[in-house]
Amino acid sequence: MELSKIITSIKKEHQEIISVFFVGCGASKAELYPAKYFLEANAKKLRTSLYTSNEFLYATPVSVDESSIVITCSLGGSTPETVAASKKAMELGAKVIAITHNANSALAKNAHYVVVHGFEANYAAKLEKMTNVLGLAAEILYQYEGYEHYEDMMDGMAKIYGLIEKSVATVLPSAKAFAESHKDEPVIYVMSSGATQEVAYAFSICLLMEMQWMNSGSFHDGEFFHGPFEIVEKDVPFILLMNDGKTRELDSRALTFLHRFNAKTTLIDAKDFGLGSVIKSSVVDYFNPMLITAVLRVYAEQLAILRDHPLTKRRYMWKLEY
Amino acid sequence: MELSKIITSIKKEHQEIISVFFVGCGASKAELYPAKYFLEANAKKLRTSLYTSNEFLYATPVSVDESSIVITCSLGGSTPETVAASKKAMELGAKVIAITHNANSALAKNAHYVVVHGFEANYAAKLEKMTNVLGLAAEILYQYEGYEHYEDMMDGMAKIYGLIEKSVATVLPSAKAFAESHKDEPVIYVMSSGATQEVAYAFSICLLMEMQWMNSGSFHDGEFFHGPFEIVEKDVPFILLMNDGKTRELDSRALTFLHRFNAKTTLIDAKDFGLGSVIKSSVVDYFNPMLITAVLRVYAEQLAILRDHPLTKRRYMWKLEY
Repeated sequence: MELSKIITSIKKEHQEIISVFFVGCGASKAELYPAKYFLEANAKKLRTSLYTSNEFLYATPVSVDESSIVITCSLGGSTPETVAASKKAMELGAKVIAITHNANSALAKNAHYVVVHGFEANYAAKLEKMTNVLGLAAEILYQYEGYEHYEDMMDGMAKIYGLIEKSVATVLPSAKAFAESHKDEPVIYVMSSGATQEVAYAFSICLLMEMQWMNSGSFHDGEFFHGPFEIVEKDVPFILLMNDGKTRELDSRALTFLHRFNAKTTLIDAKDFGLGSVIKSSVVDYFNPMLITAVLRVYAEQLAILRDHPLTKRRYMWKLEY
Repeated sequence: MELSKIITSIKKEHQEIISVFFVGCGASKAELYPAKYFLEANAKKLRTSLYTSNEFLYATPVSVDESSIVITCSLGGSTPETVAASKKAMELGAKVIAITHNANSALAKNAHYVVVHGFEANYAAKLEKMTNVLGLAAEILYQYEGYEHYEDMMDGMAKIYGLIEKSVATVLPSAKAFAESHKDEPVIYVMSSGATQEVAYAFSICLLMEMQWMNSGSFHDGEFFHGPFEIVEKDVPFILLMNDGKTRELDSRALTFLHRFNAKTTLIDAKDFGLGSVIKSSVVDYFNPMLITAVLRVYAEQLAILRDHPLTKRRYMWKLEY
């Protein structure tokens, strides 16, 4: 079902919606973040929260009821905590929308509506999950409160996939250089701001820690100057994800500091790929995470090749019960 | 002014409050988290968000207006981003409450109400900031929506300081052992759940990275199994902050995994200090962060001693403009 029709259908039954919850784990939680950030920034009345699934399940907010929409997310649709959270939200009377790659999954069966996204086809397909969730948030805001930049958002949704494919086609040389220079680093830090904050988080906990067994930490670059920057010395590796939009000033301040003290800085800058010439400035902030995630995927793939450590290699996942 | 009177005074002028924003940087941002977590879990209508100050300033949510309360926080009251954010919130018509140790600071001058907290006297005094912010959140909920466990919360506010002092008096031996065994670690991970999530974050970015120049990362222990746990091997150091309350199950699952694979695990468990016998179970979740922060402070002090690296030593802060 089209995203707009899902929300229209919910509104027919539930004319008052107070809260919108986003619920997932790991990369799927991080991919919900741009939508939560968008609603938090632009809604005047709608409440919104993002929970890791087990926290939603064990410490369920009292506001989860028939006045809520709960959006749950899992790539394979089998993450047990997320399936359980989705089921619990339904039991409490919330309208539940599941986002998954697997239309026949347990998650899909424990939701009122299902959005099935691509994954394998190309880099753009891997960003359908994050983009569709943002689209749902925009529909909710538009239909329940009104949103003056709705048309710009729809225009962005239509154009971002093309820009992603065009961008990733250019990054192989810089990705190879990154992999060569970082393959033996004892620790790599990742930071960003705005809607891209959890892209930094996901690259740190999933691509580096989970898929490469490399040490890593991540934080908001507005927080950098209130703690983490004391770790900076010559050659300490930082990846800075730079946004086109309102928080660029924060990213830029962090970049200046990293350069000043000769940190080993890798910059992924949305402006280098022309994000602002494709996406309208009224909504550009919310499309940085899709573009930057796709570019980072190429970096991770090259790192995996040079380290002889496939991105699919695990110590525990798929191997044990835990 | 008493916390309850501040909210009563705001309510006289602004009978409808839609949003409550918490704004700060670094440790002061983390100390706002329990209050934000409490409101998010218990409010049915009030919106709530936590922002690092510069993000609030540069990407100000559209909902900041006369229907908002903004709570800003800075220990010394001079953090420029937080002062600017506080000022902007006032300009937009919000009611602003500043929490600071310095009654004459720039932050105190750019707020409608000021809560001055202790710091030097003892460990309990260092937790007045976090506890007062939680108290404000409870008052807001009670006066604007009603809160059935308000009396239990007030009872907890009265008792937590005594428990903190009693607890820290017992932890020196374990803090010394921690310092001895961790002083040369190349990286230390910290995790927790629930209201304590950002205690893990603050210990990681402030105590370890900022004050000890040690590498570190932190994450929610509900997220541990969706990425970070692949870094676990024998002797990899993890600090697990274990809650008494609804999310204990999540902490416990992480602990089982760490023990199973012989990670170098440091456990700070609120139950070991009898939190649940002092604080009513209806509100116990929200007092874990105060108790655990105080205990961790002793750990950090012992680490600083054994590493000959005072907690006040900096490379950049207080030394440069940045």
